[in-house]
Amino acid sequence: MKEDILYHLNLDTASHDFPKQFGDVKFVCVGGSPWRMKSFTEYIAKELGLEDPKGEYPNICEGTDRYAMYKVGPILSISHGIGIPSMSVMLHELIKLLYHARCTDVTIVRIGTSGGIGLQPGTVVVTKQSVDAMFLPRFEQVVLGQARLDGAFCSYTEEEKQNYLSEAYAAGVRNIEMESSVFAAMCKLSNIRAAVVCVTLLDRQKGDQMSSSHEVMHSYQQRPQILTGHYIKKKLKTFKNI
Amino acid sequence: MKEDILYHLNLDTASHDFPKQFGDVKFVCVGGSPWRMKSFTEYIAKELGLEDPKGEYPNICEGTDRYAMYKVGPILSISHGIGIPSMSVMLHELIKLLYHARCTDVTIVRIGTSGGIGLQPGTVVVTKQSVDAMFLPRFEQVVLGQARLDGAFCSYTEEEKQNYLSEAYAAGVRNIEMESSVFAAMCKLSNIRAAVVCVTLLDRQKGDQMSSSHEVMHSYQQRPQILTGHYIKKKLKTFKNI
Repeated sequence: MKEDILYHLNLDTASHDFPKQFGDVKFVCVGGSPWRMKSFTEYIAKELGLEDPKGEYPNICEGTDRYAMYKVGPILSISHGIGIPSMSVMLHELIKLLYHARCTDVTIVRIGTSGGIGLQPGTVVVTKQSVDAMFLPRFEQVVLGQARLDGAFCSYTEEEKQNYLSEAYAAGVRNIEMESSVFAAMCKLSNIRAAVVCVTLLDRQKGDQMSSSHEVMHSYQQRPQILTGHYIKKKLKTFKNI
Repeated sequence: MKEDILYHLNLDTASHDFPKQFGDVKFVCVGGSPWRMKSFTEYIAKELGLEDPKGEYPNICEGTDRYAMYKVGPILSISHGIGIPSMSVMLHELIKLLYHARCTDVTIVRIGTSGGIGLQPGTVVVTKQSVDAMFLPRFEQVVLGQARLDGAFCSYTEEEKQNYLSEAYAAGVRNIEMESSVFAAMCKLSNIRAAVVCVTLLDRQKGDQMSSSHEVMHSYQQRPQILTGHYIKKKLKTFKNI
């Protein structure tokens, strides 16, 4: 293939020098919302002393509003939208980008939000194992009749929901989000080190409405970023010592 | 429930008067990209002679960047992102919004882009029947082993892809997109009239890379909007004649 067009990222190998633009990438941080990924970029730039004096972090995917991408030093940040298909479209093109750029030793971290089960809202969960609706560690979508809509629980009664959550809790599940199974599967297939670090915004055993203030929600959303920032800083020191 | 928070739309019944703000809505147009929905709003405003003299169409979902929503007269436009989960999250909250606003006689149209099969790129397809991966008219996600990622065809060979597309074509399938099954299912469950109107951006039997220019792509993307605009104008005349 002479030219590879990463359509949803609005990037292509003909008009971009991928090795030059992205070759130094060691960490890719992904999260649902474009705003959150921009904010993470500003945060990590400051943390790493790589701040742009004008505070400018242009969106590399400018020209599309499907996804937003930012880069500061060896850190690439990309939004992935909501759910497995949105995630898989982005990941598919991201993985091609890393390949074309000849990146090595890359770690991808999903910095997300999630519903919690039996945890204080604001708890940060580092996923040990993604499981699907059958509590199986696989990437396969199972539909329990017409009612089973991802993340929506549309036609369940409150009691059915709570039973489901109790079962999940008993099976070791601590938070709920919508992307980690495909994320884990695709990163593994591509031999990329990956992590899922999500803050819980509420305890789903106590309901599914968001009752915290915007300020509180905002501060919760910082937490996976801060933890991941620490990790990245630590790892970057190791790179320098090699 | 005293207050209903539509979290992903950043709207709630406590601080918004839904019947006042949305009660007159008769058409909801949804599409993947926020930019496209804003552009549709500007287009339909002009078409209906409801233009804002300053050309301002504020995003009703301001404060979140998950989705973008615009309103002009009885037309609501909302983005839904990529794929079934993203679509179902938005639809779930949109349907609650319409209920709280006591809207009646609402029609929802998905104005989208898609891959075509055996059609000239730029062809507008009005979906007769959404089918799933098994060509069955149901909303149920079936996974053919690890390779089956929505819309990605990741691990298929080129020959397998073409066989799959030929089979689809023989079964009457003319375009491919990622949201219409959940869209059709949820609208039907909610007794809402709905349509899927998508332009094809390429012929998937000839490949999956986007080779048309930005101008051409842009003009293709106008087509579902123009067709839907005609329909809405026609229907609104009927409303006035009642």
